[in-house]
Amino acid sequence: MSLIEDKFAKLDTEHAPGQEGRLVSGMAVGIGDTLGGTPVDFSHGDVNPAAFAPPPTALEAFIAGEARGGSQAYTEYRGDRTLRGILSERLSLFTGKELDGENELILTPGTQGALFLAIASCVVAGDKVAIMRPDYFANRKLVEFLGAETVPVEMDYLNTKEGSGICLDQLEAAFKAGAKTFLFSNPNNPTGVVYSAAEITQIASLANRYGSTVIVDQLYSRLLYSGVNYTHLRATDIDTNNVVTIMGPSKTESLSGYRLGVAFGAKHLIARMEKLQAIVSLRAPGYCQAVFNTWFAEPDGWIEERIRQHQSIRDDLLGIFLAVPGINVRPPEAGSYLFPQLPKLSVPLYDFLAFLRSQAAVTVTPGTEFSPNHTDSIRLNFSQNHSAAVHAVERIAGLVDRYRA
Amino acid sequence: MSLIEDKFAKLDTEHAPGQEGRLVSGMAVGIGDTLGGTPVDFSHGDVNPAAFAPPPTALEAFIAGEARGGSQAYTEYRGDRTLRGILSERLSLFTGKELDGENELILTPGTQGALFLAIASCVVAGDKVAIMRPDYFANRKLVEFLGAETVPVEMDYLNTKEGSGICLDQLEAAFKAGAKTFLFSNPNNPTGVVYSAAEITQIASLANRYGSTVIVDQLYSRLLYSGVNYTHLRATDIDTNNVVTIMGPSKTESLSGYRLGVAFGAKHLIARMEKLQAIVSLRAPGYCQAVFNTWFAEPDGWIEERIRQHQSIRDDLLGIFLAVPGINVRPPEAGSYLFPQLPKLSVPLYDFLAFLRSQAAVTVTPGTEFSPNHTDSIRLNFSQNHSAAVHAVERIAGLVDRYRA
Repeated sequence: MSLIEDKFAKLDTEHAPGQEGRLVSGMAVGIGDTLGGTPVDFSHGDVNPAAFAPPPTALEAFIAGEARGGSQAYTEYRGDRTLRGILSERLSLFTGKELDGENELILTPGTQGALFLAIASCVVAGDKVAIMRPDYFANRKLVEFLGAETVPVEMDYLNTKEGSGICLDQLEAAFKAGAKTFLFSNPNNPTGVVYSAAEITQIASLANRYGSTVIVDQLYSRLLYSGVNYTHLRATDIDTNNVVTIMGPSKTESLSGYRLGVAFGAKHLIARMEKLQAIVSLRAPGYCQAVFNTWFAEPDGWIEERIRQHQSIRDDLLGIFLAVPGINVRPPEAGSYLFPQLPKLSVPLYDFLAFLRSQAAVTVTPGTEFSPNHTDSIRLNFSQNHSAAVHAVERIAGLVDRYRA
Repeated sequence: MSLIEDKFAKLDTEHAPGQEGRLVSGMAVGIGDTLGGTPVDFSHGDVNPAAFAPPPTALEAFIAGEARGGSQAYTEYRGDRTLRGILSERLSLFTGKELDGENELILTPGTQGALFLAIASCVVAGDKVAIMRPDYFANRKLVEFLGAETVPVEMDYLNTKEGSGICLDQLEAAFKAGAKTFLFSNPNNPTGVVYSAAEITQIASLANRYGSTVIVDQLYSRLLYSGVNYTHLRATDIDTNNVVTIMGPSKTESLSGYRLGVAFGAKHLIARMEKLQAIVSLRAPGYCQAVFNTWFAEPDGWIEERIRQHQSIRDDLLGIFLAVPGINVRPPEAGSYLFPQLPKLSVPLYDFLAFLRSQAAVTVTPGTEFSPNHTDSIRLNFSQNHSAAVHAVERIAGLVDRYRA
């Protein structure tokens, strides 16, 4: 295999969420009948009106942006200056720490764009990067694309009541071994756990001690369930030159179709990210940038109602999963992911997922996308029509019983 | 300087088009009075109604896309399947060669996104990549970001009447020296020259002989002036596994604010590009993708009228430049760029450009963005309001005389 073939083999998207349509059906034949019901694609949230549509003001903001013409189409590579001013105030308020919109903030094509730019601005080939297991599936691939080496840090989320269960000794060992960058999501994707204040404080203090940069993906930090305390890493005493925070309106706010994200933090890293964005995609789509005007400025009560609806779906789905013998799941404290661990099955995980699609009209993402250890887990994005999601999870429970080892 | 500092120093955007607002003013003091007139920013096209607005159907197509909801927001990473089917037919007709929309086409965030993905899918650190001088400023930076080495190929556009004046001996020498990738724009950015049929045929035959991949950026291939013949590289006898063509509706069609581009060609390279897109920006903005429905389907006569208007501006600006002693310029055969070579000035190029901004309200891009040899040239994107462009070029002519050495 040539160098470049090897490089791209590591970026395989065959089982990535949303790519199921490109999967070539396997030979495996399922047992028993098809279960009827509304098809549900748990690989991503449903942004249709019957589930969770964008805020009503988003499209208007886009149309107003298009009408502004050239100044909105051709912004600086880091994004429209006026918008960066507005967003820096809102993000400063949200995270509890001052933010300079002129130098410490960049608008990107989605949080995926922000993640790529942030990592590529910290890491060169041969570097070591600490990443969590499990965590967002692209993290590992980003590090590998850059020719860097991942140093995994485990989290014992299933046996932890408060916080993520991150193994801080492993994180310190990674820093000691030379990892100068640590990348993690909080709330964690795929488990929905929120790191405790103590964990975040200790991450900050380890980063300061070893002079490491921390990139924290806070994509779901607005969707917190009742009673959950959230600690913003950037508001701790972490060295401000060593932290970049990533967010975006694609999930809680259902604005994925506009491809918008932000990264904010260390000025020298934001400057690098802009240079790189200039050659990767020029800028976040100009007219779409205008939709940021509506972010953190949704109609009164809109976010609260959205959280309430997600919490109610979460509770119903948890109830179904927990009634199935052998299924183990941590109740998510934030976001819209469930990451149940399944009992031992009579078929391999990818076959089981193919049966879920063909026999139950349900699409989920295999745990192996998030960690090589999680061959027994599946991820569901439950930002779906409530009743369709409940019936789909009942079908999953049915097939778990059917294919139980 | 650390490895990563060095890497990003090569990606400097200080003098890149559109970034002039971030330039810190120098100390140089200009001679004489300020010249009055409508400010013109020639660093990019003007998409406002007084100049060249998007086709009237674009916004409607976006709104229809948004209304489709989830299926338009969450397409495959390579873009919406139905749209790829539609576009493959239109691009096949346009380029004169069959195209399989399922496997040979990817939708990207702008042609910038397509360029990045295409190069990164062909090149690993240490490789050699042949690029033209002059050519689009990002080409060199993309190669350097990947840790590869550029092998420059010159073109004698000022002394060539038909075709670009590419030095095919240099291209062959680059291939002999191990360059497995050749990247060029046709029509050329910044000069507006179109490669002759003989040149394109010889590029194809050299690529076949040395087994090299050619990435051809055809961004301006719809905006051809009267009497110009255009040869699509992919329609020659070049090995179809070794060619990727890049286009997009950002320029001629003024749709830059939607961030849309396409790459089409070798199936294995398109597959790599999709894997990389998945971690760099996920996909071209979903709702924006719907605007592709209007591409190559503009209202009757719309493109023809647009070409006519650009040709008329081109002729007027050429007339002004050619009347200035010492200015040398090749009449562009396509696109909306002029790349005049200026006479020897009494001040360095960057100071002259600063005086153009402060004394003449005119922004242009320095030739050094396109080739280190072009310290005496400037690029103008003349997709502007006709009369404002004429008066702005008269002011440029005035300052050339004022600062003549």
